[in-house]
Amino acid sequence: MHDAKLKLQLRILWDEEIAIGPGKAQLLEAIQRTGSISQAAKSMNMSYRRAWQLVETMNHSFQQALVETQKGGTHGGGAHVTNFGEAILSQYRQMEQNAHHVIEYDFQAIAQFLKQ
Amino acid sequence: MHDAKLKLQLRILWDEEIAIGPGKAQLLEAIQRTGSISQAAKSMNMSYRRAWQLVETMNHSFQQALVETQKGGTHGGGAHVTNFGEAILSQYRQMEQNAHHVIEYDFQAIAQFLKQ
Repeated sequence: MHDAKLKLQLRILWDEEIAIGPGKAQLLEAIQRTGSISQAAKSMNMSYRRAWQLVETMNHSFQQALVETQKGGTHGGGAHVTNFGEAILSQYRQMEQNAHHVIEYDFQAIAQFLKQ
Repeated sequence: MHDAKLKLQLRILWDEEIAIGPGKAQLLEAIQRTGSISQAAKSMNMSYRRAWQLVETMNHSFQQALVETQKGGTHGGGAHVTNFGEAILSQYRQMEQNAHHVIEYDFQAIAQFLKQ
């Protein structure tokens, strides 16, 4: 018995850069969960440097910051997803769901011809 | 003036393998155009070996072959996309179009917040 799955990836490109896509959306959720870029990176097995780059790209692609950082404090500064960032994230997840929903039928129409 | 684009990628996974996705769909179209796996590979800047692997994966994931090859002949054998392969390709492209169509609104809703 084989397992058929549909994988959907949506990326919004801003010139040559990815303003938001699967990895950045996941990172935003990890920052919401952990309140820190370094903890978020850790939870995704991503380097701190890489996570910072993703945050920087999001923040400079959009008109407002999606993530804000606080310097200092006992934990060396935290980070949070702004209201603006939450709105973009939510619209992105909605877009994924809408796409998944509409192509479920097409997916099944193809998947029925895979070896079982 | 920046350029915002939506990139959508759909892959149908059969266990751990991609039964069909953007690269394989493009390869099928190149085989239709050129009538040969080697010419199709060339037109995609892909090695012959890699193109063969993609064809093999498609052919063993589905219940019927998507690509059939002829041995020998003056050009060292050609290849063609079967009726079954055409049907799968067409359904895959339809699925992409349906997804694009439904998320156009969501895409614009996000893209309006990118820097102009």
